Amino acid sequence: MSSADGLASELAAIAGRDHVLVDPELTASYETDWTRRFTGRARLVVRPADTAETAAVVRACAAAGAPIVPQGGNTGLVGGSVPRGGEVVLSLVRLRDLEPVDRLAAQVTAGAGVSIVEIQAHAREAGLDYPVDLASRESATVGGTIATNAGGMRVARYGPTRAQVVGIEAVLADGQVVSRLSGLTKDNTGYDLPGLIAGSEGTLAVVTRARLRLVPRVDARATALLGMASTAAAVELAAKLRERLQSVDAMEAFFEEGMALVCAHTGLSRPFAGPQACYFLVECAAREDPAAELAAALDGAAGVVESAFARDPAQRRALWRYREAHTESINAAGVPHKLDVTLPSARLARFESEVRQRLAAAVPEARPVLFGHVGDGNLHVNVLGVGPDDDRADDAVLRLVAELGGSISAEHGVGVAKVPWLHLTRSSADITAMRRIKDALDPQGILNPGVIFPATPIRAGG
Amino acid sequence: MSSADGLASELAAIAGRDHVLVDPELTASYETDWTRRFTGRARLVVRPADTAETAAVVRACAAAGAPIVPQGGNTGLVGGSVPRGGEVVLSLVRLRDLEPVDRLAAQVTAGAGVSIVEIQAHAREAGLDYPVDLASRESATVGGTIATNAGGMRVARYGPTRAQVVGIEAVLADGQVVSRLSGLTKDNTGYDLPGLIAGSEGTLAVVTRARLRLVPRVDARATALLGMASTAAAVELAAKLRERLQSVDAMEAFFEEGMALVCAHTGLSRPFAGPQACYFLVECAAREDPAAELAAALDGAAGVVESAFARDPAQRRALWRYREAHTESINAAGVPHKLDVTLPSARLARFESEVRQRLAAAVPEARPVLFGHVGDGNLHVNVLGVGPDDDRADDAVLRLVAELGGSISAEHGVGVAKVPWLHLTRSSADITAMRRIKDALDPQGILNPGVIFPATPIRAGG
Repeated sequence: MSSADGLASELAAIAGRDHVLVDPELTASYETDWTRRFTGRARLVVRPADTAETAAVVRACAAAGAPIVPQGGNTGLVGGSVPRGGEVVLSLVRLRDLEPVDRLAAQVTAGAGVSIVEIQAHAREAGLDYPVDLASRESATVGGTIATNAGGMRVARYGPTRAQVVGIEAVLADGQVVSRLSGLTKDNTGYDLPGLIAGSEGTLAVVTRARLRLVPRVDARATALLGMASTAAAVELAAKLRERLQSVDAMEAFFEEGMALVCAHTGLSRPFAGPQACYFLVECAAREDPAAELAAALDGAAGVVESAFARDPAQRRALWRYREAHTESINAAGVPHKLDVTLPSARLARFESEVRQRLAAAVPEARPVLFGHVGDGNLHVNVLGVGPDDDRADDAVLRLVAELGGSISAEHGVGVAKVPWLHLTRSSADITAMRRIKDALDPQGILNPGVIFPATPIRAGG
Repeated sequence: MSSADGLASELAAIAGRDHVLVDPELTASYETDWTRRFTGRARLVVRPADTAETAAVVRACAAAGAPIVPQGGNTGLVGGSVPRGGEVVLSLVRLRDLEPVDRLAAQVTAGAGVSIVEIQAHAREAGLDYPVDLASRESATVGGTIATNAGGMRVARYGPTRAQVVGIEAVLADGQVVSRLSGLTKDNTGYDLPGLIAGSEGTLAVVTRARLRLVPRVDARATALLGMASTAAAVELAAKLRERLQSVDAMEAFFEEGMALVCAHTGLSRPFAGPQACYFLVECAAREDPAAELAAALDGAAGVVESAFARDPAQRRALWRYREAHTESINAAGVPHKLDVTLPSARLARFESEVRQRLAAAVPEARPVLFGHVGDGNLHVNVLGVGPDDDRADDAVLRLVAELGGSISAEHGVGVAKVPWLHLTRSSADITAMRRIKDALDPQGILNPGVIFPATPIRAGG
């Protein structure tokens, strides 16, 4: 028996034989991520049922010096949740406990494997809501979205996933379990481990359960699509709406290149007679119909050239379709390089105009399609027409981001995809401090090696 | 020249002779905290002017193996910002840069020494507001409130200080500076260092500047004081109001013992004919007058026995006075043991009833006065009639908190005061993980030794 088999047997004794997968037909779906760009062979896939089994799996891997890639719904976009080659994939999908909603605290405790759509539905049944919402909601899990600090449409109103994590249960690299799930929103007894683990992309701990904040359920919605005179005007309007309306739920921007692509791909007709410098989709949500307050706030607003208000749910869906069909329309046109960046609000408009020139100069055949969340400075830069291994476009975009004080990853994380560019927007002092934390909590280096930091050799267990 | 003098000369060369204080008359105000309970002699007090000087001070202290106590406005209550004996007090009060408000991002960059009242006024001039508000606002500083993750009245609506920190500049134990102040609310490039440093009580880094989130300025207020049939009814009502009203800004609870003390001390007349099981003060704030929505939400609400609505600012202040005069009334009656705890919402009422029995059993002469922020499970347990070195009351209260799944410190932090009880509500796995992070970022142990963790000998510099 090889040592790999030895570990497989040990893990089978922990999680059951059915939950240790080695057959390539069974492991394949765990080995390639949402982009199809990142893929690697796993040594095996193990699917523990609960926290105790997860801890035992981590201990066994640590003893064997076997690197681990924790995996949730496998909807990542930066290669952070699939093997690079030879790692154990630790799938958390079986950790599906979902406790009753605690309405008094407006919180719920959920296992790592519960999907976002499930927790949303569960919260809504109790008259509340889970405020993280993103396109991959059917597959993305509680554990995966915590590990990656997932953002989505409603960050400007509710914050990213980290802001929803009231408590966490997680397995550390030595198999110890940290667990605080009693739901204390005020707790100043030492370091914020939940906040540190959130967004650490599986490099510090394996999230097994979480206590999550819920928000009031707000079902009355008002939606408008605006044609703006400029991107700068859209950014200004976003600031004004946020100051004036508590009910702003989403503020999305996209551009003529995306509108043209979406209309060509979907057959939708254009919302306005002519093309617009920037399309701005705003949605308010409240207990009482926010249509009047949205209309009042937009009345006479500077820079609004055209506007379309949704008067019913069907019209609302139609307006959203222009924005939501971007991804499928882009994917139908080719395999894009997906760059997900944040800029300071004051520099968002400048970035949007300069990035096209920089791209044209770096890769003449590049075809950018931008869209984003204008309320929080986050733009998704999709670049078509560039070969999969050609990094020139990525480099041009990310260098401009760095020049303007932005971040090379707003939502997607670093994964393995962004490691070469991390130094552009994190200082060496930052990276050194992060590396020290990593080494302190995972001295062997077995948790998701190669993610965030360049891979280092696995060290012997302590 | 002694080695202490050698360090003083070195620091004088960095910060200027006027800003290295050794005369006991000058150092005294830096040596005793807000409680008057915690006091110790400093080796010296140094007051650098900016981040570069602060970094040089830290490097000099590290080279000399001299432990450092970082200090902001010195309004702490747990002995975390004053020397235990022989440390260098590093006062950040001169770091008073305050940049113009960035309305587009709704953010501002402020030096560590800016007071909360100053940043509030600065934000309000720009039509925005800084949402952290607490009784010590005149003296408490940006740096100190970040280091302690200060809470206050508006946490249920806006979160604690950590939730406002968009970016941070801080000096690490080796004198390196981490600095990201460009104001990116979405940034998934590695670990959340600002969130980790927030609440670390000066044990991981010295905060020198921060980029802070601002919120819309909401000046129309509606306030009601309610007499509730029970504490449980108050907790239920808090949950209902939070679900129904976006404008709830504060939900405070206090009890008959406090009402009696306040009325006796201040000469205020009682708001209601008879004593109430629980007093519940609710305030809404919005751009438009929220009086009607508050009245509607309270109309027929379960458990409301009596109610008084403020109809103008004078009446509003009068209602708040019952709550705000608690601290001065308690202090006039003696030197209280101040315990600041959080309970899960579902157990708050049980705690409130049991804690009095536990106290009576532990210390018959103990006189508890409770008040708190009912929206987030935080109660301030003040205990009068107990000698300063008598820990029996503290122990009885904190053990009950632990039994009920709470935290021994909601807002004040651990400091040195709570170190002996930390293990009650943080597991050994938690404490081990925190200790590893501390050792990784401050291997010498020079930053605020004895705070959060028991003191260990200072190690030689690396």
